[in-house]
Amino acid sequence: MFNKLALIGIGLIGSSIARATRLKGLAKTIAISTRKEETLEEARALGLGDTYTLDAAEAVRGADLVILCIPVGAYLPVMEAIRDALEPGAILSDVGSVKGQVMATLGPLVPKGVHFIPGHPIAGTEHSGPASGFPELFTGRWCVLTPAPGTDPVAIDRLTSFWGALGSNVECMDAAHHDLVLAITSHVPHLIAYNIVGTVADLEAATQSEVIKFSASGFRDFTRIAASDPVMWRDVFLTNRDAVLEMLGRFLEDLSQLQRAVRIGDGPGMEALFTRTRAIRRSIITAGQETAAADFGRPHGNASAVPEPVAEVLFREHGGGEDA
Amino acid sequence: MFNKLALIGIGLIGSSIARATRLKGLAKTIAISTRKEETLEEARALGLGDTYTLDAAEAVRGADLVILCIPVGAYLPVMEAIRDALEPGAILSDVGSVKGQVMATLGPLVPKGVHFIPGHPIAGTEHSGPASGFPELFTGRWCVLTPAPGTDPVAIDRLTSFWGALGSNVECMDAAHHDLVLAITSHVPHLIAYNIVGTVADLEAATQSEVIKFSASGFRDFTRIAASDPVMWRDVFLTNRDAVLEMLGRFLEDLSQLQRAVRIGDGPGMEALFTRTRAIRRSIITAGQETAAADFGRPHGNASAVPEPVAEVLFREHGGGEDA
Repeated sequence: MFNKLALIGIGLIGSSIARATRLKGLAKTIAISTRKEETLEEARALGLGDTYTLDAAEAVRGADLVILCIPVGAYLPVMEAIRDALEPGAILSDVGSVKGQVMATLGPLVPKGVHFIPGHPIAGTEHSGPASGFPELFTGRWCVLTPAPGTDPVAIDRLTSFWGALGSNVECMDAAHHDLVLAITSHVPHLIAYNIVGTVADLEAATQSEVIKFSASGFRDFTRIAASDPVMWRDVFLTNRDAVLEMLGRFLEDLSQLQRAVRIGDGPGMEALFTRTRAIRRSIITAGQETAAADFGRPHGNASAVPEPVAEVLFREHGGGEDA
Repeated sequence: MFNKLALIGIGLIGSSIARATRLKGLAKTIAISTRKEETLEEARALGLGDTYTLDAAEAVRGADLVILCIPVGAYLPVMEAIRDALEPGAILSDVGSVKGQVMATLGPLVPKGVHFIPGHPIAGTEHSGPASGFPELFTGRWCVLTPAPGTDPVAIDRLTSFWGALGSNVECMDAAHHDLVLAITSHVPHLIAYNIVGTVADLEAATQSEVIKFSASGFRDFTRIAASDPVMWRDVFLTNRDAVLEMLGRFLEDLSQLQRAVRIGDGPGMEALFTRTRAIRRSIITAGQETAAADFGRPHGNASAVPEPVAEVLFREHGGGEDA
């Protein structure tokens, strides 16, 4: 399908693209570039590509598909490094969770003849780094492309086929719409999760070991999202600020109503909301976007709970609380 | 260990206790009582007990361990039905997620000689009903007991051993402290999840099918908790109101700060919080309260995503939006 795929950045997403591309024979050669020597060596040891370089321009030279797989805050210096090395006719894409700012920042710098098609595969885990990727990450998921009007349709088709071969359904949309929808399905949920985990960790009313011991009561589900890459998510909130604030505002309006329902003891109102939200999970499962297994299919029956004194020590070591 | 275990209510928790008790031979006989005929017949068909009755008093007669496994809002009428049938020396316990209100409501009604030891196994899934239980549910988890001062220590030991045999670590604490800690580790997380799922479902900015398609971007994790039993959770918020409002207040204070960080673009502040919260998940995993597998160990690679038109219909059918 492609002669040379250049991956700038080789974390969870980049390494998954590399593995899937290799597995399905979607490019004759894979060039990997990243900023840190140790990360590059890790990628090399994992055999993720064919060539490895700290020089992004070297990686993109002769590449017909270039995908930026780095935090969106790092795009500008990388673009400035590679723009003169980009091949005419090459497709330049990315995987960032925010699209409007990406287009505004990079769009003006894209050389004539290079097809700029920003993208966002809606897939991931809470892990990071070259060893965290796997080829099935994108299977059964959606990938959103946000090419500007007037982008070459043949190039869009080629990139669509690439993501289709990785197992994804592809949808094109306006970048601003993408950012608004993702603000509510992804960015605000992450913000809320980060917040509640922080709030719980800081309480003096509960000992840290109680928080850990009783985490199976609901809290632990939030900790997964709140374990997501700090740099990537910092950049999401820095670059999708307006949509995030808009959606956070809606969330807070609704929470105010729910808070009132709790305060006045509105049983029927609460029961109605909780019944409605139960149905939504069923929709997501039926649409193939979630497992039907109870408790996410997490294993039960491991009698490995750690006694309290050890849990307390672990929590301190892992930096819970303000002093960390 | 016990002659006769009486389970009042036979949902997820009741049916799991029944299965584990049977498996480990913890009671000579298991009597099951519930309010609805169809539920009772379902329990009978599953072979969960030895006797089945719609009459709670009949179930508790001669029982040396009685566990209420019903929504806390239903305790009072059940207690009035069974109190004269309780055996002297019997242990009366429960599994409700709130302890202060339970003690205040039931405590004065407990006959002399009956040992009232309220309990709360910190375990569950989002599913409900007699068929949803399994014996390993309590393994490796904590169970909190909140006996009033002066409760017979031998009875407390017996109940502690029972939960230990079900695989749980047992901890005794003051009911008010339990309610405060669970307010933040469980009740407020559930409230937040219910809220955000409701907010997302109501938006006009995103089509319902987009919400479903892009749910793997973070939202879907919240939908599991928001699929929890509506009646049980209505009663939790009705009976733990003050602690929930207190903890919700803390959550909102912190969210206000985080909102400001987003608004002013405080990258370092956000990155610091996100780094700290990442460590908390590690603590929970190390303490044996969570799987270390990426993405909760959810399966990847199922190319079963449903195309958009079908997803839209499914969402409408399952009651998304205000008209449902």
